[in-house]
Amino acid sequence: MAEQTRKDRLRQFIRDIWDEGRVELAGEYCAPVYRIHHDPGDPWDGMTLDLDGFRDRVVKSRAAFPDQKFLIQGLYADGDAVVMTWLWEATHLGDIPGFPATGKRVAMSGATAYMFDASDRLTGHWQVTDRLGVYQQLQRNKTPG
Amino acid sequence: MAEQTRKDRLRQFIRDIWDEGRVELAGEYCAPVYRIHHDPGDPWDGMTLDLDGFRDRVVKSRAAFPDQKFLIQGLYADGDAVVMTWLWEATHLGDIPGFPATGKRVAMSGATAYMFDASDRLTGHWQVTDRLGVYQQLQRNKTPG
Repeated sequence: MAEQTRKDRLRQFIRDIWDEGRVELAGEYCAPVYRIHHDPGDPWDGMTLDLDGFRDRVVKSRAAFPDQKFLIQGLYADGDAVVMTWLWEATHLGDIPGFPATGKRVAMSGATAYMFDASDRLTGHWQVTDRLGVYQQLQRNKTPG
Repeated sequence: MAEQTRKDRLRQFIRDIWDEGRVELAGEYCAPVYRIHHDPGDPWDGMTLDLDGFRDRVVKSRAAFPDQKFLIQGLYADGDAVVMTWLWEATHLGDIPGFPATGKRVAMSGATAYMFDASDRLTGHWQVTDRLGVYQQLQRNKTPG
């Protein structure tokens, strides 16, 4: 069934691409054009990416949190989409604007609607993440001065 | 079909309860027990509410934003849930901790997985909202001093 196939592929995509950073596999999961429909706070919000642009986003997004892991809470398939609710954990090992690396653990949660084409390839997403929760943790971890 | 029934009921629930504040209708939409599985930053996060508790949450949540409107972006039904992606707009007409009323417009977005029982009544939700976006707008609107 297309719905189960897409859920399985999404789990593999999250593990291979976002958890493990194997960007050389992006073409197995993504369509040639990937659109970020909504993702407030993400530097690529609203952009349409080709595969090179998609790989660049993954590499830059993972740089500060190279051991990040997504903990999938729920997968909901309907129409051309699979929605994923998720928790996320990582060690803050690289600098991000305003927050030099602290080596501390941080946690986050979010929900993402991933869109698929007829070949079960990802064509984009609509996402909200709890950015405030992360910033509060980074702020707390900051070394004084 | 149960999936379309639930989507229709969810649209009505959002309009009646959250947009218009008609809490006297809560019993038509909600099961006697409503659980907030995940809702970071919400004062009721993790709680299990009876109908009176549910109405109290709606009244207190709407107090600072009485003209709030949810703009539903997508509805995704699967299993016992319907996931709703949404934008939100309101006028900041009441005080909230740290932010006295400014009369300014604010906008937000989020995604919510609503769970249903066999009678198509709501039994709870798992939600993430872009809290940081709201706080940045409230901060910007603050009158100096």
